[in-house]
Amino acid sequence: MAQFFNSRETLVTEAIDGLLRGSAGRLARLDGYPHIKVVMRADRDPSKVAIISGGGSGHEPAHAGFVGRGMLTAAVCGEVFASPSVEAVLAAILAVTGEAGCLLVVKNYTGDRLNFGLAAERARAAGLKVEMVVVADDVALPDLPQARGVAGTLFVHKVAGALAEAGRDLPAVAEAARRVAAGVVSIGMSLDTCTVPGSPKEDRIGPGRAELGLGIHGEPGAEQVGFSGARQAVALMAERLARAMRPGPQVALLNNLGGTTPLEMALLAEEFARSPIGDRIEWIVGPAAMMTSLDMHGFSLSLLPATEEVEAALSAPVEIAAWPGMARFGAIDVLPLPDGLTPALPVPSTNPARRGLISDCCDIVIAAETRLNALDAKAGDGDTGTTLATAARALAGSLDRLPLADAGGLFRAIGMQLGQTMGGSSGVLMAIFFTAAGESAGGGRDWIGSLKAGLGRVMEVGGAGPGDRTMIDALAPALDALDEGIAQAARAARQGADGTASLARAKAGRASYVSEERLQGINDPGAEAVALLFEGLAAR
Amino acid sequence: MAQFFNSRETLVTEAIDGLLRGSAGRLARLDGYPHIKVVMRADRDPSKVAIISGGGSGHEPAHAGFVGRGMLTAAVCGEVFASPSVEAVLAAILAVTGEAGCLLVVKNYTGDRLNFGLAAERARAAGLKVEMVVVADDVALPDLPQARGVAGTLFVHKVAGALAEAGRDLPAVAEAARRVAAGVVSIGMSLDTCTVPGSPKEDRIGPGRAELGLGIHGEPGAEQVGFSGARQAVALMAERLARAMRPGPQVALLNNLGGTTPLEMALLAEEFARSPIGDRIEWIVGPAAMMTSLDMHGFSLSLLPATEEVEAALSAPVEIAAWPGMARFGAIDVLPLPDGLTPALPVPSTNPARRGLISDCCDIVIAAETRLNALDAKAGDGDTGTTLATAARALAGSLDRLPLADAGGLFRAIGMQLGQTMGGSSGVLMAIFFTAAGESAGGGRDWIGSLKAGLGRVMEVGGAGPGDRTMIDALAPALDALDEGIAQAARAARQGADGTASLARAKAGRASYVSEERLQGINDPGAEAVALLFEGLAAR
Repeated sequence: MAQFFNSRETLVTEAIDGLLRGSAGRLARLDGYPHIKVVMRADRDPSKVAIISGGGSGHEPAHAGFVGRGMLTAAVCGEVFASPSVEAVLAAILAVTGEAGCLLVVKNYTGDRLNFGLAAERARAAGLKVEMVVVADDVALPDLPQARGVAGTLFVHKVAGALAEAGRDLPAVAEAARRVAAGVVSIGMSLDTCTVPGSPKEDRIGPGRAELGLGIHGEPGAEQVGFSGARQAVALMAERLARAMRPGPQVALLNNLGGTTPLEMALLAEEFARSPIGDRIEWIVGPAAMMTSLDMHGFSLSLLPATEEVEAALSAPVEIAAWPGMARFGAIDVLPLPDGLTPALPVPSTNPARRGLISDCCDIVIAAETRLNALDAKAGDGDTGTTLATAARALAGSLDRLPLADAGGLFRAIGMQLGQTMGGSSGVLMAIFFTAAGESAGGGRDWIGSLKAGLGRVMEVGGAGPGDRTMIDALAPALDALDEGIAQAARAARQGADGTASLARAKAGRASYVSEERLQGINDPGAEAVALLFEGLAAR
Repeated sequence: MAQFFNSRETLVTEAIDGLLRGSAGRLARLDGYPHIKVVMRADRDPSKVAIISGGGSGHEPAHAGFVGRGMLTAAVCGEVFASPSVEAVLAAILAVTGEAGCLLVVKNYTGDRLNFGLAAERARAAGLKVEMVVVADDVALPDLPQARGVAGTLFVHKVAGALAEAGRDLPAVAEAARRVAAGVVSIGMSLDTCTVPGSPKEDRIGPGRAELGLGIHGEPGAEQVGFSGARQAVALMAERLARAMRPGPQVALLNNLGGTTPLEMALLAEEFARSPIGDRIEWIVGPAAMMTSLDMHGFSLSLLPATEEVEAALSAPVEIAAWPGMARFGAIDVLPLPDGLTPALPVPSTNPARRGLISDCCDIVIAAETRLNALDAKAGDGDTGTTLATAARALAGSLDRLPLADAGGLFRAIGMQLGQTMGGSSGVLMAIFFTAAGESAGGGRDWIGSLKAGLGRVMEVGGAGPGDRTMIDALAPALDALDEGIAQAARAARQGADGTASLARAKAGRASYVSEERLQGINDPGAEAVALLFEGLAAR
């Protein structure tokens, strides 16, 4: 599969530079490309303990994305899924470590342990105070003496970073980091493998299967399991976590392994809440992509006992976009629906003239059904006449229930009616037209002015205006001419409707998808309906 | 492809509930499931203008993820890629709008415009002050009169939210929102389509192709273009943006459409910096997933003129994890490599006894080459003897350059030598062993104690201890017995090495991947090497 990079050789350095671009003044890098890829705080305080982490790339935002005040002082980046060299780690240590010393946070992979370990040794030989904590939080393989280090490492970064920022000394920071590393448990699940840049994608997870207990380097999971949905998947993971997790209330870290949508991630948070371990989760970090495995369609959950020290350190503020913060995890606040959602039915009233006018309008539209359908069939799906006639029949049948004596209320009631009976976009536009007209009439405007106000709102909301090959091409001139009488309005509407036949292309509505050739010489059905309506009224 | 949800019908409500779980006290929802899905601030201030947005789901974190102080007051969520109903929008308006009124921020899709538009009309009829701004930032189809609303909408959310939070009135907030909507331009590109939950994935983008100018609902892009890498892709986009962007310095919003890795996104930021429009980008928001299209492997860039008003509003702090903040976009800060990365060569000195001892050690190891290789061939790749002998030959050849008179310096020099000549994990472990021993000797400890300190560090870094079927099984007892003389140490080493033949399984190193049956009865080659070394020294 194609990916957004230029070459495998420059992928990591170019990505690091992209990170640095957007952190001007806050982050810097050492001048050691391509072998030494170290991202560090430009604003570090050498009197505080430095926190250094790193490892292979492909886990972004880990690790460079977590460099900043209150988390990492530096990140040492290897190539994709490859440990950085001893020299690179040593460069990072020497660059950021002052009198207070530094703590190396290392995930439990042989390459990382050895390279960070030897660099630590060399830095000690150079007179620096260096401590190292190894994170091995994966509980997927309980029999394996060397558990992998996965997303739980983020907890160590954050706690150590907060304590260092608070000015604690190296033994205190290292001890706290070790307590976190000893307390955190993690497990991951994936529905698909990851795509290593420049390599073909392995296709080892069949349909209806998932891998449970995976590392973050595309290696096969501890086991393949059946997959029948989020609830079953979370149940499996909760069971494994329940066996391994420490006592007491927990902070959960819900990590996107890269290719899972935010929609799925949010749903997974809900499933963990409903799972047997849900009531032990007091806080949550994420869901977010924190320790990814390139584009792996999977996620992991890490759990850490929520001690006072942990809560304080995890909630300490940082200016690091990749750290999603820690939030209370708990009950959902459901508020009652607001009053006024269903408008009160209007109180019927009488006005013989208005009743007659509406009735006539309905009759005219009903009579035009076949003609409008035929016109619409040439450019659309041939239902304009039926749509309008259906709404007109319903309106005619509701005359006894309309507040005919109240102009504003009448317009609003017609709008409500048409919105419910016409359906589709045109129903909504008619509803907007009459509701806005009603609002205007209620504000004291005459009825022509009110209809114009309604049309104005339709144009604003619908985004169409005169010349866009819609009913507006007939309605707008008709309303403008209405002051001069219905006959004048009818002539204006007819002229407008006929003019649509030579308009190039519809701007809005379904006809905007129809080719221009097919539309030439054909009146827009909506505009034609308006013209027929005004002509019918003029002929009464 | 399988995805992490339970059913298409409950996908959106369960995801919203997941979001609410992790925002206890900050967010709430209306009691209108499944049709009315409204997420709102539980802590809203009714005296301030409410900002309401929404649309179909599948764009997470938009829109519900941006509800919070300083951005949205409420989000109205439809089903995946489907506009929410008029009733749902009206419910949101009625629930959060006070005296100050509300602003609806709507992306330019017919369904959203109409449904939000009619709801606005009804809310006005109910006496509320409602303004609506339509965002149409996509410049992919310059001829289309109705540009789509895409990720640039985030700018409108943030600016309007900041002004509302600052207590500005509705006309001022709406005007500012309209200025932003008028100024923002966006374009997107994708290498693959998105997977709509419950539907088969469309496969319309061939290898070496990309879609340029795409919406956020999986619809085909404005055009298919050739794709030959990130630089070429960004050049194409920069060219389109350059034609449409407004004058002056810009804020860029780099949006992950869902399935692009953070590694790729960071690299794309760098490519935009290097592109012809790079020097006009003063600020950046992201890269981050803000307005996604499910799992689409693509991204978009939005540009907005960086006016004083915009800079102030975009940099106003919010407690919304999905908002990545705005950062300066500029030059990369490159710092020189630290001093001390290449250790100074030791000053050679003489000590005949030590020279003889090291020389003997080398001879013994060189003589054992074939025997150790044969042993290793039974469980590994048969190179233990050669690896050790090669390093021993190099060490023997460097005797004239060693600081033989200085115990601490000598150990460190040997560590440096072995790290460079042995290679692999064993070379690193030997380097750690001697470097740590040197540090200990430099601290005044006797040489046996120093070697023990070195071994301690090897165990800490390597993660192996006695009983784990490594060289430690011979070395640890030998060092313990060394006080009683070399003969005693040799016996202890031999006993330890022979004991590895009955050890179950290696915990570390390559033999940890070999089946237990194959290892039974075979001494660990590393332990055997240690035993042969001590036996050889005892026999001198």
